[in-house]
Amino acid sequence: MSKQYFKNLETAEVGEQRSVDELVDNIRFNEQGLIPAVSQDIVTGEVLMLAYMNIEALKRTLDSGHMTFWSRSRQTYWRKGEASGHVQNLIEMLVDCDGDALLCKVEQSGPACHTNRRGCFYLRVNGDTAIVEVMDSI
Amino acid sequence: MSKQYFKNLETAEVGEQRSVDELVDNIRFNEQGLIPAVSQDIVTGEVLMLAYMNIEALKRTLDSGHMTFWSRSRQTYWRKGEASGHVQNLIEMLVDCDGDALLCKVEQSGPACHTNRRGCFYLRVNGDTAIVEVMDSI
Repeated sequence: MSKQYFKNLETAEVGEQRSVDELVDNIRFNEQGLIPAVSQDIVTGEVLMLAYMNIEALKRTLDSGHMTFWSRSRQTYWRKGEASGHVQNLIEMLVDCDGDALLCKVEQSGPACHTNRRGCFYLRVNGDTAIVEVMDSI
Repeated sequence: MSKQYFKNLETAEVGEQRSVDELVDNIRFNEQGLIPAVSQDIVTGEVLMLAYMNIEALKRTLDSGHMTFWSRSRQTYWRKGEASGHVQNLIEMLVDCDGDALLCKVEQSGPACHTNRRGCFYLRVNGDTAIVEVMDSI
């Protein structure tokens, strides 16, 4: 059903609308009940991190405007910044064509990465070498 | 071991290097042997799509410079653009802090989405409404 839901939207006109409740009910979570959510800085365009939401984390994120994930390692909800104060406010959320990935444009306070770097993608592959780098803007 | 590998890199100095072979050997694929790979347009900063690589797809991508995924639905390798001609060339690859997500900065020929849209994230959540939109640049 949910696969068909997104299939039907493929040919929708620009501006066509659905209710968010309906959309969320059709989101295609994986076998673990999770969907990957990419956080992108709405100002700089940097991709800051990728984490996972279950349906409850997704609803909490939409309701509160605070990015909330499901921690697979700790098996608990994880409201970004609840410990560090480095909150991530949701500005825009987009769902992809087949309903199994989220792109969240956010305002990030302080570093997004637990290593205190601005973002999590700081290991750059360069030919045969991987280099630790400061994450820069595009 | 691979978790510790990335833990050790957390405190690495900027500019510190590892071999890519070593990095790839330590990548933390999920229970299905997959890692999510985010494709970002290197020119516009748009997040174009999210798909999955297994270790062989990752190696093919690094060797060829052509983004190559593992299709979960078709259970086969999928070199982006092999059918459509809309190839995605890898310009930069970054690995995240815990080694379980990839950020790939790419040159995209034509639309990245199978719906012929520029990118896959075209369903925008706006309050209680989801809206079909043309994907725009940041």
